[in-house]
Amino acid sequence: MRFTLLCKVCGKNVPFGLKTKICSCGGNLNIEYDMEIVKQTFTKESLTHRDSTMWRYAELLPLENKANIVSLGEGWTPLIPLRKAEAMLSINKIWVKREEQNPTNSFKSRGFSAAISLAKEYGVNQVAVNSNGNAASALAAYASYAGMKSYVFLPKDCPSLLVKECLEYGAHTFLVDGFIHDAGAIVKEGETLQGWHNIGTLKEHGRVEGKKTMGFEIAEQLNWKLPDVIIYPTGGGSGIVGMWSAFLELQQLGFVTGDLPRMVSVQEKGCHPLVHALESTGRFIPQTANITSTPTGMRVPNPPDGQLLVSILYQSGGTAIAVDKEEITQAQVSLGHQGISSSPEGAATFAGLLKLVEQGWISPKDEVVLFNTSCSMKYMSITHTDLPIIKTFEDWAKLSTNQ
Amino acid sequence: MRFTLLCKVCGKNVPFGLKTKICSCGGNLNIEYDMEIVKQTFTKESLTHRDSTMWRYAELLPLENKANIVSLGEGWTPLIPLRKAEAMLSINKIWVKREEQNPTNSFKSRGFSAAISLAKEYGVNQVAVNSNGNAASALAAYASYAGMKSYVFLPKDCPSLLVKECLEYGAHTFLVDGFIHDAGAIVKEGETLQGWHNIGTLKEHGRVEGKKTMGFEIAEQLNWKLPDVIIYPTGGGSGIVGMWSAFLELQQLGFVTGDLPRMVSVQEKGCHPLVHALESTGRFIPQTANITSTPTGMRVPNPPDGQLLVSILYQSGGTAIAVDKEEITQAQVSLGHQGISSSPEGAATFAGLLKLVEQGWISPKDEVVLFNTSCSMKYMSITHTDLPIIKTFEDWAKLSTNQ
Repeated sequence: MRFTLLCKVCGKNVPFGLKTKICSCGGNLNIEYDMEIVKQTFTKESLTHRDSTMWRYAELLPLENKANIVSLGEGWTPLIPLRKAEAMLSINKIWVKREEQNPTNSFKSRGFSAAISLAKEYGVNQVAVNSNGNAASALAAYASYAGMKSYVFLPKDCPSLLVKECLEYGAHTFLVDGFIHDAGAIVKEGETLQGWHNIGTLKEHGRVEGKKTMGFEIAEQLNWKLPDVIIYPTGGGSGIVGMWSAFLELQQLGFVTGDLPRMVSVQEKGCHPLVHALESTGRFIPQTANITSTPTGMRVPNPPDGQLLVSILYQSGGTAIAVDKEEITQAQVSLGHQGISSSPEGAATFAGLLKLVEQGWISPKDEVVLFNTSCSMKYMSITHTDLPIIKTFEDWAKLSTNQ
Repeated sequence: MRFTLLCKVCGKNVPFGLKTKICSCGGNLNIEYDMEIVKQTFTKESLTHRDSTMWRYAELLPLENKANIVSLGEGWTPLIPLRKAEAMLSINKIWVKREEQNPTNSFKSRGFSAAISLAKEYGVNQVAVNSNGNAASALAAYASYAGMKSYVFLPKDCPSLLVKECLEYGAHTFLVDGFIHDAGAIVKEGETLQGWHNIGTLKEHGRVEGKKTMGFEIAEQLNWKLPDVIIYPTGGGSGIVGMWSAFLELQQLGFVTGDLPRMVSVQEKGCHPLVHALESTGRFIPQTANITSTPTGMRVPNPPDGQLLVSILYQSGGTAIAVDKEEITQAQVSLGHQGISSSPEGAATFAGLLKLVEQGWISPKDEVVLFNTSCSMKYMSITHTDLPIIKTFEDWAKLSTNQ
């Protein structure tokens, strides 16, 4: 069997099952691939001829039958050099991984392509998720494409355009008076009472497996030489979990050697429990009060496995850093002027980069990858611009003289 | 020389020049590639190993030195089957080419990557364009990435989010009391008075050459077997011009054989001069009055070379069709429920498809490609949703019972 489930607590190995998440001993069950089987077809050379989607890594994704792939053309996103930033900061190499170029304009497309494909393989016809926005619209798009009914639950202050996106994709969309984990409680209850398949963070296997492909792509696009640092905006953290798994799998396969990247989680001040854990005892404690950050994907006061995130950051020699709303806004302006439209989460990675360079935690010889997880438009405030209106070149010339 | 300029009127051949557009005889100068030189490296086999961007077709793009490529990761966009639509309409194959997955969320990225790269090769440092929105934001992004100053001129009723996008990318942004061709007059005047390089439609060579790559990709992604029909939303029409050039070049190279696709232009009622030309004498006449369509990329009453567009539609055995605002909105809903977020222009192609199937112009055995040129969000009205707010699963259950 190419993939099974393994308990990291008691070592038990069981067959894969869509809803099989907890071992009889109480520990979490994670997917384990038989690398002897994977290696038979998964070679560096064969990859050079494969589709430009995340499904090029199919042997390391938990789908039995490729006919069940539900793909809208996700993954294999561009890795673009930020040359102005390199020069400005005197850093060897700074790349931005452009996840906004995914089908639903966010990296969530990857996790949901995997999760919905898996759901299709198991004959599921209704799915639900709690989300700060992008996960919901991704679920909605993939579920609609696959012919499944979808229900999405968002905090009531979710930016309007993200809400509209869910409606556009045909999801039954609900606003919740609470945070993402409150919405999660509703989805959990509906598993039994409504019977929907819960695709919340770490509630099933597909999403984190889909996120692994970001790690595979970084490695492949950099010719199997991993970068020194990866900076990633962290809410639920399945991106960090997924990429770390990907790097460990690539090590097992012998595709990469040497040190793995130092993983950096960026959070927004006002909701930064990971940063707090690393700055204090290392023990993860959910943030239960004073949640004052803006409603973005990073605002996750109680991620499903905060301790796992902390341990990955430690293992990798990485860190966690908090940036404030003003720093995020400045970063968005800076990236925009470098030709990149960044979501607040994506911009946070640039803001984090600036701080880490200033602190000397990132050195001039480092190669850094930032993740732009979505585009700015989804979060734009809904006001008109107040630009003046002109009619002729003469009007323009007058305006320009006055500026 | 791999590429030169050829006059289709008098046959004169001259060296390429950034601003060399008109022959001494008065005819238009178009780029001509020496296929003997191109063939030396441009083979079907070599393509299978190239970058997943439009620059995989570099031999057929007018850049001397690849070091001048200004790329944000454009092109090689997904071609996705619309299976629900195929079943619903009983059509063999319907694909959507997902141009919204380009760096600036629209197909304009292609033309501007080419145009700005060319401008860089010629040492240009300020660029300008007239646009209905997407061309402007693409110019802004590529110009910023390349370190050039940019000026964009938009009709004053351009959707707010498109205007904001231009500002985000750092363009000097101006709203014009008029239509896109009125904005064009301002840009034209500024060529001499301000000295900016005019990158308006068909005012330089790069944009239409960049648009050719959509045609190359359709051919390559369909294993060099061109579809029967391509439906494309038409404003300025450089996409149609570009793709047709691409197909002719592929024929010259022997990469494709047999019939070329029947090209279909879709326009919105209220600004449909192409449709009018095909329904009457075949002579293109700009629309000068009663311009009542919505402010989208299709609202181009006076395209730079309307007669060329008409002639391509005739040569290909194609047609032009007009759809109204309501049909476009319905199409957006339909595509959204198939997992695709479509711009009004992209949705118009689906609305056009429905009409052509109904008329029998498209038959069950046809293979059709629709172009989704951008995403819906840029055009979303700026209002809040009025969804109810819930707190518990019980609240949800009550709501759902009442629906």
